[in-house]
This record gives sequence, C-alpha cells and structure tokens, in this order.
Amino acid sequence: MTGEFAAIETIRALLREPPGTDEVWIGDDAAVVAVPPGSRMLLAADTVVGGVHADLELVGLDDFGWKAMAACLSDIAAMGGDPCWALVTVAGADHDGVRSLYAGVAEASRRFGCPVVGGDLTAGPGLVVTVAVVGSCDGAPVLRRGARPGDEVWVTGPLGASSAGLRHLRSDGPAAMRGAAAGLARSYARPRPRLAEGRAARVAGATAMIDVSDGLAADVGHISRESGLGISLHEVPVAEGATADDALAGGEDFELVFCVPPGDSVGRAFRDLDAPIRIGTCTDDHPGVRLAGAELPPSGWEHRL
Amino acid sequence: MTGEFAAIETIRALLREPPGTDEVWIGDDAAVVAVPPGSRMLLAADTVVGGVHADLELVGLDDFGWKAMAACLSDIAAMGGDPCWALVTVAGADHDGVRSLYAGVAEASRRFGCPVVGGDLTAGPGLVVTVAVVGSCDGAPVLRRGARPGDEVWVTGPLGASSAGLRHLRSDGPAAMRGAAAGLARSYARPRPRLAEGRAARVAGATAMIDVSDGLAADVGHISRESGLGISLHEVPVAEGATADDALAGGEDFELVFCVPPGDSVGRAFRDLDAPIRIGTCTDDHPGVRLAGAELPPSGWEHRL
Repeated sequence: MTGEFAAIETIRALLREPPGTDEVWIGDDAAVVAVPPGSRMLLAADTVVGGVHADLELVGLDDFGWKAMAACLSDIAAMGGDPCWALVTVAGADHDGVRSLYAGVAEASRRFGCPVVGGDLTAGPGLVVTVAVVGSCDGAPVLRRGARPGDEVWVTGPLGASSAGLRHLRSDGPAAMRGAAAGLARSYARPRPRLAEGRAARVAGATAMIDVSDGLAADVGHISRESGLGISLHEVPVAEGATADDALAGGEDFELVFCVPPGDSVGRAFRDLDAPIRIGTCTDDHPGVRLAGAELPPSGWEHRL
Repeated sequence: MTGEFAAIETIRALLREPPGTDEVWIGDDAAVVAVPPGSRMLLAADTVVGGVHADLELVGLDDFGWKAMAACLSDIAAMGGDPCWALVTVAGADHDGVRSLYAGVAEASRRFGCPVVGGDLTAGPGLVVTVAVVGSCDGAPVLRRGARPGDEVWVTGPLGASSAGLRHLRSDGPAAMRGAAAGLARSYARPRPRLAEGRAARVAGATAMIDVSDGLAADVGHISRESGLGISLHEVPVAEGATADDALAGGEDFELVFCVPPGDSVGRAFRDLDAPIRIGTCTDDHPGVRLAGAELPPSGWEHRL
C-alpha cells in the first residue's frame, strides 16, 4: 500500500520544475512564486466531482484531470486574463488514480501555460478535485457587470458540442472518442478554455464577459442581472452535430459570451482567431434574456446542494 | 429546494465586502485583487474531508469550516508569511450546511485577517472543503530545506493537545467542549495557525520551518530529509493533559518547528509571544530524527490514498 508521500513523488515527476532557484513549487508548506507584472491579480477556484461534473465510466481519469484544470482556467479566460500558477488538490484517488489524473492535469498545464506549483492529496468519500488558479491581467479585467444598453453581444463560437458529445458517449461508450462523433466527444472530455479569445475580447473593449459553463441562457442571465439591463438575442449558433437545446441549456462548452460597443474592434482583435459570432444586443429593458422576443427561463445548470 | 445561487447569497452576507471599487471579490468569474507589496507570493491549498480530518459527530460544521481555514493558514505560517486572500470551495453541503460551515470560515477569516474572495459550491459524495490561500512575505520565506548542522531546533509550544482533545470528545461527546477538558477539545475543534509565531521565527533568522500537522516525528523528519542532515531531539514538550504519544505522533497541533543558528535572536523575536521551547539540535549525521539517542520512526499521520 502506498501513501501520500509516494504519490507526491509520482506527481513531481509528471510536472515541470520551477524556472530558477528563486521560486519553490511542490514540496514545501506553500509554493513561493514571483509576483506577476501589473498591479492586479485574478484568483479563481473550481471543484469538479466524479459523477457530477463528468461520468467516470465514459471518460478517463486523465480527461477528468484535464477538465478540472480547464474549468478553472476558463474562469481566468472570462476575465480576459492570463493564468500564472495553479494549485491542485485531490481527494479520493488511489496512487494509480493520482497518476492518471495528473497525466491530464500536466497535459493541460503545458498546453495552457499554467504550471502546477502545489496542492494537497487526501483520502476522500469519492473523487473530488479542486483547482485554484492565480492569474494576471495586462489591463482592466472584464467583469460581468459593465455592459451598457446598445452594446453588441458576441459568443466566441457555436454552442452545444459538449452536451452532444456526452450523448454520444452515453450511447456508444468510450468508442465514441474514435468514431464519427469524436470531435463532439472530445468537446465533452477535453474542453478548451478560451484564453486567447478572452484576451482578444478584452483588447476589443469588452464591457462584460462570462464563460458558458452553466448554459447560454443562465450565463447570459448573469451578465443581464449584474449589468442591470436586458439582453435580446437574435440567434443561438449551434455546433455541428448538436441540437438547439444542447446549445441553449447545455453547459461546459466554455465558449465566452461578451458585450462590446458597436464598431469594428472585434474583427481586429480576433484577426488571428476563429471569428466570433454576434448573437444579440444589450437593451434598456429590465434584466432578463429574450430570444427572438420571447423571455428565456434561466434553464441552465444550477447545482442542487 | 434551494440551489447554488441562493447559497452564494447566504455566503456573501457572512463575509466582508472588498475595501474599494478596485477589487472584486465574490460574484464574478474570478476575484480581482491588488498585488501585495514585495516581490514574492506564497500559494497554498489544503483539502479537509468530513470523517477524515474531523469527526462531524463530535464537532460542528462551523468548527469544520474554521479548521479548513486554519489548516491552510498554517501552511502560510510555516513559511513565515502573511495571508492575503483565501478561496474556499465546498462540495457536499446543503444550504444549511453551507451556512454553518461558512460561519466558521468567516470567523477564522476575521480572526486571522484573511478575507475570502471567491470559491465554488457543488454537489458531492460527502463533505469536502478546499481552502487556497495567497500570502505575501516581507523577507525571504522560510523553507524546509535550509537547516545547517549546529542549528538549534525549537517548537512554538507544547504538543499533543489536539490528539488529547479528540480523545475527550470521543469519550464525552460534544459535552467535552464545556467540561474540564474544554481547552483540549478546543485545540482539536478550533486549532490556531501560528501566524505571529511564524513571522517571529523568520525574523529570528530561522533556516528551516514546518508546521506540525502530521505529528512531530514525521514533520521534523521532513526538515531532516529536505535539509540533508540529522536532527537530535533532547525533549518533546507535552501539552497539559496530553500524553507523550499524543505529543510525538498526534497531528494537527499546528505548532511550528523551526531551526535557527545559536544565539539570542529567538528570545528577542518572541518577546511579545509565548516563549518557544528548544527541543534539539541539527547534526551532521545522515538524515533521520533521534530522540535521546534512539532513532524515531516517522510514525506520523500519512493519508492512505
């Protein structure tokens, strides 16, 4: 039987070492890091739970580790920020489980340029992984509450791929990861935080932004309430292979929705990225989200506690 | 049935608001905070699990929330640092549970000057609380690996009170919190991170430091291995009402052990605090911890994964 200390060594072998002797990452009481440039930091934490945020009979533990990182990095993306460091805590995984999980954590860490500098391992009643990320921001971070009437509403890409992918995984099992629906299944198993898109939206002058993690209706509703205005959508772009319901109510696509004053700044800022899609307008109505004139219920994913 | 969003409002009511309009705490995708003075930051995260780190039939959920904060703040104390902000994630508590838990979180937050600026709430298979803390440090943080042969080994107070307190709680139930053993029970239910003591040890010139969370033998063993030297203890100070075994193997006292070159710097730095106790010496032996000449097994608490 191996314990916590052996598992920590396994983890260290999977992750990067600090860049110099000035920083101390895994292995002490706390990590020591150099303060990022700029005067403000972004702090976010997300917990993912086996069976709640991902079905562990359909995706691997490495996918689960990736998803835990992606969910928290997406919060940094939604502020228009850059991730600097992550802390990862794992409850309820044995040594082999920790190894698989951290393979995905390490992959996401490399892919998105966010070193894992510390964390914790403990026994637990089920698999519970928490990722906390410290980020920085070159300019003012984009909140949920800055939208103004007349602003255009944009989304960084079509929605619903994650929901549709889960449906394929449920009907075909892990084979879905290799079949015709592989792209959709991958959207569910390996979602991508839109970090470059978040920065571009900030540079374009975004007045409010959120990541679509609970479903478009629910998340646009947050911007509407926090900014104190109505949002009128004329379109919900649906990912290929997904349904309108997937796009509207499905969560965890991690696309970003942002508001921006009319003009051509979006096209310029997204020059090197997939073109975002204009889906609506901010109005001086009372808070609420309307699609083609009809009020949308906030039918997204709210965790029952 | 109430969900995540109502619980978030409950939490906001329990916690402090940000100091000005420059910072954004709970309620957006990430918290926005001003960078602390100094060039380095400390990052730590700890997960506490109901039934593993505290018996929820013996202590309240408010105690559990306090303990989650204390465990992570103790990591910052063990570097000689100051806590700046905390993120708190909770899996597996209902709305009433979140309220009780956050009462303790908020109390610890106020008591130790560490505002909670964000986090996450989710369903879960049992109660799992993660606290991540960002801290700062006026000077060089004290690692585990800087001790040198000849350094004295000190502990900030007698040990074993938490273990003894758990024993009283097990035999007398929650009544132990009010009886003759109330002080011991409180050591278990409401441990205090030694933040002032950690700063004093750093100011005294500590070369290595750790908090006693897994038991004295195990934690002194970490300093020994990381610093690559032997540690010879001549004494294990036992808290009043605790046994020698409580003091040696019991965890979660959160006293600090530190090494420092001989001299009178410790007395000066701890002038306004309870006097720390000298318990041993760093030797040029191979790594290992000896008590009165006999090798100590690292019999502390290692989580079985």
